[in-house]
Amino acid sequence: MTFEVLQKLATTKDVGTKAVLLVMDGVGDLPHPDYGGKTPLEAAHTPNLDQLAQEGVGGVLDPIAPGITPGSGPGHLGLLGYDPLAYQVGRGVFEALGSGFELTPQDLAIRGNFAAVKKGPSGEWLVTDRRAYRMGDRPDEQCRKLCAQMVDLQLPGVTVFARPVSEHRFLLVLRGAGLSPEIAETDPQALLVPPLPPVALVPTAEKTSALIAQFIDQVQQALDGETVVRPASLGEPDQAERYYPLLRGYGKYPTLTTLPEIYGVRAAAVATYPMYRGVAQVVGMAVFPEDPTGKKGLAAQVETLKECWQDFDFFFFHVKYTDQAGEDGKFEEKKRVIEEVDRIVVPAIRALNPTVIAVTGDHSTPVLLKSHSWHPVPVVLWSLHGGVDSVSAFHERACAGGALGRFRAVELMPQIMANARRVEKFGA
Amino acid sequence: MTFEVLQKLATTKDVGTKAVLLVMDGVGDLPHPDYGGKTPLEAAHTPNLDQLAQEGVGGVLDPIAPGITPGSGPGHLGLLGYDPLAYQVGRGVFEALGSGFELTPQDLAIRGNFAAVKKGPSGEWLVTDRRAYRMGDRPDEQCRKLCAQMVDLQLPGVTVFARPVSEHRFLLVLRGAGLSPEIAETDPQALLVPPLPPVALVPTAEKTSALIAQFIDQVQQALDGETVVRPASLGEPDQAERYYPLLRGYGKYPTLTTLPEIYGVRAAAVATYPMYRGVAQVVGMAVFPEDPTGKKGLAAQVETLKECWQDFDFFFFHVKYTDQAGEDGKFEEKKRVIEEVDRIVVPAIRALNPTVIAVTGDHSTPVLLKSHSWHPVPVVLWSLHGGVDSVSAFHERACAGGALGRFRAVELMPQIMANARRVEKFGA
Repeated sequence: MTFEVLQKLATTKDVGTKAVLLVMDGVGDLPHPDYGGKTPLEAAHTPNLDQLAQEGVGGVLDPIAPGITPGSGPGHLGLLGYDPLAYQVGRGVFEALGSGFELTPQDLAIRGNFAAVKKGPSGEWLVTDRRAYRMGDRPDEQCRKLCAQMVDLQLPGVTVFARPVSEHRFLLVLRGAGLSPEIAETDPQALLVPPLPPVALVPTAEKTSALIAQFIDQVQQALDGETVVRPASLGEPDQAERYYPLLRGYGKYPTLTTLPEIYGVRAAAVATYPMYRGVAQVVGMAVFPEDPTGKKGLAAQVETLKECWQDFDFFFFHVKYTDQAGEDGKFEEKKRVIEEVDRIVVPAIRALNPTVIAVTGDHSTPVLLKSHSWHPVPVVLWSLHGGVDSVSAFHERACAGGALGRFRAVELMPQIMANARRVEKFGA
Repeated sequence: MTFEVLQKLATTKDVGTKAVLLVMDGVGDLPHPDYGGKTPLEAAHTPNLDQLAQEGVGGVLDPIAPGITPGSGPGHLGLLGYDPLAYQVGRGVFEALGSGFELTPQDLAIRGNFAAVKKGPSGEWLVTDRRAYRMGDRPDEQCRKLCAQMVDLQLPGVTVFARPVSEHRFLLVLRGAGLSPEIAETDPQALLVPPLPPVALVPTAEKTSALIAQFIDQVQQALDGETVVRPASLGEPDQAERYYPLLRGYGKYPTLTTLPEIYGVRAAAVATYPMYRGVAQVVGMAVFPEDPTGKKGLAAQVETLKECWQDFDFFFFHVKYTDQAGEDGKFEEKKRVIEEVDRIVVPAIRALNPTVIAVTGDHSTPVLLKSHSWHPVPVVLWSLHGGVDSVSAFHERACAGGALGRFRAVELMPQIMANARRVEKFGA
C-alpha cells in the first residue's frame, strides 16, 4: 500500500476520533522453563489488557518480515506504517533528533562509542573494552569532559558537532556538502583486535570516508593525555590504555511523507528515550514530554498523555522498560513492568475515551535470549467496530489465531486509521 | 505472484475439474448487540455452509489490503485474482459492459446521476437533491425521457452515447481519440453547494475536461424546459429546479490478461447486476443469464448455473442481496438471505459435483455501519484435498484461525485453481 493511495483515501471529514498506539518495547517473548513454561505476558496478571483483547481482536505481527530480527529504529518505523525495508534510516539520525539536536539536510549523524584501546606488539591499537568500562564511576561526567575536548576539531569544509549522550555514548554530527552515510561501521565487535577503518561502501562516499578517518586521528590526538578511567570495582586504570571513538549508525535526515500528510491527523508521541523520540519526529509527530529528563516513569508519561490529549488525534505511547528487562534476562522484572503498564497505563488510556487502542511491541526480546529476536509480536486492536474473534487475553499464545491473523507491522497503521474512521472507500 | 508465473504453471492436461466461487456480496459483518452479540452469519442457520467449512478449510481475507474499505469493483477484481491496487478501473467501464454496451478501446465510460439544482442568490446552480428525488413516481421512464433528449448532443470530434440505467442513473460514453479518465468527479457530495467542475487531474486530460464541461452545458440547455419531478409523497415540484448531470467513475476499457489466458479455463459468471457482469466480462468470463431482466432470484440463478455447467470450468456465482441488507441496516434480512443461499444455492452447487467450492464475500457490509467496511471477510475453501483445520462453521469467528489464515483476496484464485489441479509444480 503506497502512501499515495492512503493519502487519497484519507478522510477530509472532521471525524473527531482519537487513536492510541501503546508500544511495550520488546514485549514479545518465549515460554520460560523456570516459570511454568509461560512467557512473561502469560505469567503477568493483566486484567485490563485482557479485557482489551476480549473486546477487540488479536493477532501477531512481524515487525519487518518473517524471520527478521529488528533493530529499534526499523521496529518502530514499521509500527508507524513505514516499511523498514524501504526506509533505511541510520540510527544516528534518530538519536540526534531525539536528543534535541536540530539536523539540517546537509548533516551526517553518527553514533559514537568511546572504547578503550591499547597498543599491540606491532604498535597498532587493539580494542580492550568496546564501551571504555562504561566510563568509570561518573560516566556521564566523563563523557561530557571527553566531548568538550573535541570542540576545536577542524575538518576541511565540514563543521563538527560532538555531543555527550550518556555513559560511553556520544553523538557526532558532520555538517557540510556532499557527505555520504555509506561508510562501514568501525566497531570490530570483538576484543584485542584493531578498530575497523571507516571504509567507503560506494565510490561517492570516499570523500566522507577520508574525513572520518581524519576525525578519528584528531580525536586520538586530542584525547592522548587522557588515561582510561574504570569503576573502582575494576581496580586501577591501565596507564597504557587510551580512548578511541568507534562509529556506527551513519544517517542523513530522511524526507518521509509524514503521518499528518498521509492521514491528515495531528500526531503526538509520549516517549522518554532519544531513539524513539527521534523516530517520532521523523514521521511528523510532536514529541512529549518536552523535557524528558524531568519527571520519569509510567505515571509521569500518563500525565503527559492527558496534558496533550485535546490537541492531537493519534498518540504513540512508548514503554521502554519491557525491552530492558528482556535484554537483562530478567523474567520477573519484565512481568512486573507488564503488570505496571496494565495497572497504570491501560486504565488511564481507557479513561480518556479513545476510539481505537492498539497494543503491541516493536519486536520480541525474549528473556531466554537476552536480545532482540525475530519472533512475531502479539497485537490487540480494540475499537467499537474492531471485529470479532475468540481471543480473550493479551499474550503470544492467545493472540495467535485471532482475527487479525499474522501480518506485517507496516499494515497496522491503516487498520488503526480505518477503525478511527479516517480511511474512505477505495473505488466505487 | 505475476500472471506470467501463473500462466507458465497452468496445466495443459485435460483435468476436467470444475470450480465454483460463490460470492455473497458484503457478507462479512460485526457482532450485533441486539442479536446476542452475533453476526448475521453466526445467527443464521446454515447447515450446508457449515458442512463445507467442516469438510474444507477456513480463513479470512482482505479484499484489497488490511484497513482498506473496498468499492464493489475493486472488491471483485481482488477475488478474481487481480490486485485492485494495480488494476484501477473506473466503475463506468463495469457498468457499461454489464448493461450490454459494447465498449471500444477509444471509449471513455462515465457514470451519470441526474441531480436537482436551483439557482442561488448570486445566480449559480446549487444542488438541491443529488439523486433528483430519485426521479419521481416513474423513475425509469423519466430517466429514459431525459436520456432521449441527450441524443442529439454534439461534441467536437467525439460521439456521445447516453443510456438510461435505472432511476436517476445513466451511462455516458464518449467515443473519440485521446480521451482521458483523469477527470475529477463532479458530485459535491453535499447539498446547497454548486456541482464541482470536471477538472483535469493531469495535463494530458485537459482536452477531455473541456469536452465534458461542454457536455454538461449542453445537457443543461437541452433539459432546460424540464421541471424536476418528485414522488407524490414529496408534494408539488419546485418550478425553479432543473436537472443537472453529475459525473463520476470515469474509466477506459482495461486490457487485462484474462482468466482463460492465465489458467486456461473456460470461465462463466452467473450474476444479475450490471456492475458484477461488467467485472466478469473484463476478466474474460462469459456472462449469464443472457437477459438479466428476465427471471430473477436465487433459484433462477441456480437454474442458469445448471444450464451452463457443461460448457465451463470455473464459475463465479454472485449473490447481491446480502450487501443490500447490510447497507439498509437490516440484520434479519441479511440473515434471511444467507439462509436462502444455504438452502437453495449450496446444495444445488454440491449436486453438480464440482471439484472445488470457495465461499466468501467481496467485502464486509456490517449492519451496524450500513456501509462497506475494512473488516476481513470469512472464506471457506472446500475440495477433496483442501487441507485440514478445526473450522466447522462459516462465519467470522470460526474462520479466524483456520488453516488459510489471513490473506489478501488476490491470493484466493491460485488456491482455487491449485485445488482444481490446474497449477503445475514450480521448478523441479
